[in-house]
Amino acid sequence: MFSPLIDELIQSLRCLPGVGPKSAQRIALHLLEHDREGAATLAQSLERAAAGVSRCDRCRTLTEQALCGICANHRRDGRLLCVVETPADVLAIEQAGSYQGKYFVLLGRLSPIDGVGPADIGVDQLVQLLADESIEELILATNPTVEGEATAHYIAELAKAAAVTVTRIAHGVPLGGELEYIDGGTLAHAFSSRQAL
Amino acid sequence: MFSPLIDELIQSLRCLPGVGPKSAQRIALHLLEHDREGAATLAQSLERAAAGVSRCDRCRTLTEQALCGICANHRRDGRLLCVVETPADVLAIEQAGSYQGKYFVLLGRLSPIDGVGPADIGVDQLVQLLADESIEELILATNPTVEGEATAHYIAELAKAAAVTVTRIAHGVPLGGELEYIDGGTLAHAFSSRQAL
Repeated sequence: MFSPLIDELIQSLRCLPGVGPKSAQRIALHLLEHDREGAATLAQSLERAAAGVSRCDRCRTLTEQALCGICANHRRDGRLLCVVETPADVLAIEQAGSYQGKYFVLLGRLSPIDGVGPADIGVDQLVQLLADESIEELILATNPTVEGEATAHYIAELAKAAAVTVTRIAHGVPLGGELEYIDGGTLAHAFSSRQAL
Repeated sequence: MFSPLIDELIQSLRCLPGVGPKSAQRIALHLLEHDREGAATLAQSLERAAAGVSRCDRCRTLTEQALCGICANHRRDGRLLCVVETPADVLAIEQAGSYQGKYFVLLGRLSPIDGVGPADIGVDQLVQLLADESIEELILATNPTVEGEATAHYIAELAKAAAVTVTRIAHGVPLGGELEYIDGGTLAHAFSSRQAL
């Protein structure tokens, strides 16, 4: 309907998560009418990031350096290793500000239905890390979904075989949450995981 | 928080309309984790469109050609000229499928507060068009907002001076709309613009 270059741009914008045909059209026209400079800058950033960003050699998180900032930081406690699914999870934990150890980022979760097996989430590399470094505690912080739990159990078995203490972050009623609005699954878990005071 | 290239990408994504810091981060990580190819294609499309797309010489819509598809189409009725605010408005009217004339796209609306004057919306070019072409009817289809109405009135005066018939598209209760849910302004307009049956 529009001219070829604009149609192509609208089509390309569909790769953004949550952007359908209408939003893609709105974004394309907004950029072309009001923000050419922003569009050009975005094009450059996308190109550089898509070409330059790969994985941290140690923890598999996304970075363009050989070692990410956290792995390269010698003031972090190397005896603690926290296993998360994505770089966004690392950010969330860092923003909470209480964890001082290092990370291992799976960049996914075990999901046989989607064809994601242990090799895809870097389990070999994690086993190697457990063998090479003096890690005392492996903290499993995968998401409390079916796949996340399965991944946690799989990794827990491997860590036990490597004689490393394995823990799982607590799941239950969030602080400030009201029982009235908490879903049944979370409440049931909170009861079954109750602790002595 | 992330490595420089990723932070730069997140920052650049903020130029997209409706994308805040959290969405920008989600989009950046999604593209880097799951769709590098899409990101590279998007970068190319953005670059090409930002550099190549300019305005149609006749109707001011966005296109990379000298004349847009509609202006170049000799089967369109040159006696009708519809004035709209944006290329998206052209698309909406084309999709309705009943209008066979040509367009003039303001790419904006008169808005003294935002510093948008007649020169910015191509009024000179419109006056020239009215003088050069044998246009019989100018149809004003700017949006029924304060600025859109002001723009319509301003252009109507110019067209009358050029001895061209001026019409405004009808505003009122949309087809399929239920009176119960229509806002008061629209209803008041629908009453004041009632027509004899």
